[in-house]
Amino acid sequence: MNVVVQGRTRHYRTVTFDAAKNSVELIEQRLLPHEFKIIATRDFRATALAIKDMIVRGAGAIGATAAYGLAQGARAFRGGGPEKFSAHVEIVCQTLKHARPTAVDPVNAMNRVLAAMRAGTTVEEQQGIALAAAEEFSNEDVRHCEAIGRHGVKLIRNGMRVLTHCNAGWLAFVDIGSATAPMYAAQAAGKKFHVFCDETRPRSQGATLTAWELAQQKISHQIIADNAAGHLMQRGEIDLVIVGSDRVLGRTGEVTNKIGTYTKAVLAKRHGIPFYVAI
Amino acid sequence: MNVVVQGRTRHYRTVTFDAAKNSVELIEQRLLPHEFKIIATRDFRATALAIKDMIVRGAGAIGATAAYGLAQGARAFRGGGPEKFSAHVEIVCQTLKHARPTAVDPVNAMNRVLAAMRAGTTVEEQQGIALAAAEEFSNEDVRHCEAIGRHGVKLIRNGMRVLTHCNAGWLAFVDIGSATAPMYAAQAAGKKFHVFCDETRPRSQGATLTAWELAQQKISHQIIADNAAGHLMQRGEIDLVIVGSDRVLGRTGEVTNKIGTYTKAVLAKRHGIPFYVAI
Repeated sequence: MNVVVQGRTRHYRTVTFDAAKNSVELIEQRLLPHEFKIIATRDFRATALAIKDMIVRGAGAIGATAAYGLAQGARAFRGGGPEKFSAHVEIVCQTLKHARPTAVDPVNAMNRVLAAMRAGTTVEEQQGIALAAAEEFSNEDVRHCEAIGRHGVKLIRNGMRVLTHCNAGWLAFVDIGSATAPMYAAQAAGKKFHVFCDETRPRSQGATLTAWELAQQKISHQIIADNAAGHLMQRGEIDLVIVGSDRVLGRTGEVTNKIGTYTKAVLAKRHGIPFYVAI
Repeated sequence: MNVVVQGRTRHYRTVTFDAAKNSVELIEQRLLPHEFKIIATRDFRATALAIKDMIVRGAGAIGATAAYGLAQGARAFRGGGPEKFSAHVEIVCQTLKHARPTAVDPVNAMNRVLAAMRAGTTVEEQQGIALAAAEEFSNEDVRHCEAIGRHGVKLIRNGMRVLTHCNAGWLAFVDIGSATAPMYAAQAAGKKFHVFCDETRPRSQGATLTAWELAQQKISHQIIADNAAGHLMQRGEIDLVIVGSDRVLGRTGEVTNKIGTYTKAVLAKRHGIPFYVAI
């Protein structure tokens, strides 16, 4: 999405790959909203560390980062036959997986890349396929978010006041985001609305990331203390809640998301306010 | 209540009066939990500023501070007859009142002192009465909190996990506190229990004041993000909620308290957890 850098608006993705340098390029999210900086990881261990240290975070973003990290690790392999390559790839996957052991997205993303690699017969072929598969995974993440926008745009009507919790914006994905996708689509459709961003303690992703995103995109918004949402609902000042999700269980529909999401759901239910989970 | 200063446990009140120096002595609450420091205000304008700048905060504490500030201002009056004295006292009251225009406690406290002063026939008599009435107001605040403890102690049973929001502890009163009074009484009765202190954004009084109070008193506790209470309730890890109140409307029972109190009440209702407002 848009980032205003030195007065110019440019388009960025959260994570991209530089094939020539074999490096993963990431927005240093820990510096936001104070500084916008792109960092490059030189090898898969540095990429894993970027996930572990929360330079990059968010379900979709760490999935794509792990996919690129796997391609990066595979492409760095030199010498030795397919067996040594397999053993090396296994180390790469384990390292990236353990960077965030609670998350499912990196594992799913790497499984996709590994499955594609099986079509290659030589190490070189598999290395090439790994990067192509990572790029495809990343592009699919973007298309997925675009689809959320298309489906969700009708939820936001002119004049609405929308609450969101944490950051399920484009910084949490490769681009566009999940909870923010309907907002960006509504803006593109010319609708006017206002977004309340929960501060999202203890790490404050709403205050530092979501509000920054919306500011870059020139969408009307304000940061509120997590404590304030109930009061605003009680006063009839919130019309709609849209949040993201780290994981949804397909069978039960159970949602796992940032601490505080459940509280907002209970409050929304109490006040008859529609509550959507963008997945 | 207790404060551990350089390894020694001593008893303090939040606000006291030094008659010889005609100064109000206050705990500098903005420095807590990092530093424990008593400051003295030399005149009623400095006392008003201490309220305005939140050196002292909390319904009962600013009430007592205003009562002492009025006595301090009255006692500083020199020369001139009863009419000049009355005009001066009016300025003192207005100054203290405007230090926190949204609060009712300073106004109520000063009205009590003013009513007592009417019994005096000379300026000197009224000056003496002002201080005695302020001391009486302050002592009554303590007795009131003790009574909350006596009545509330039965709510806390052995092994309970109690949630509180913001600081309605002794730092918000002259001593003992309102929401904390049952906890201190339960401790004195030998009960074991655990207290969850909501961080209480945006000013974090739970993290900086309530947790500090409980630590001084050696009561088992932990600070949680405001977002976490719903999750803990969902998991059955909270048995009781006790909060304080800035104001309660007698006719309707409507409670005004720190932002987030309503959210905790909705959550407690949803989970069938007893929710008490100590007033």
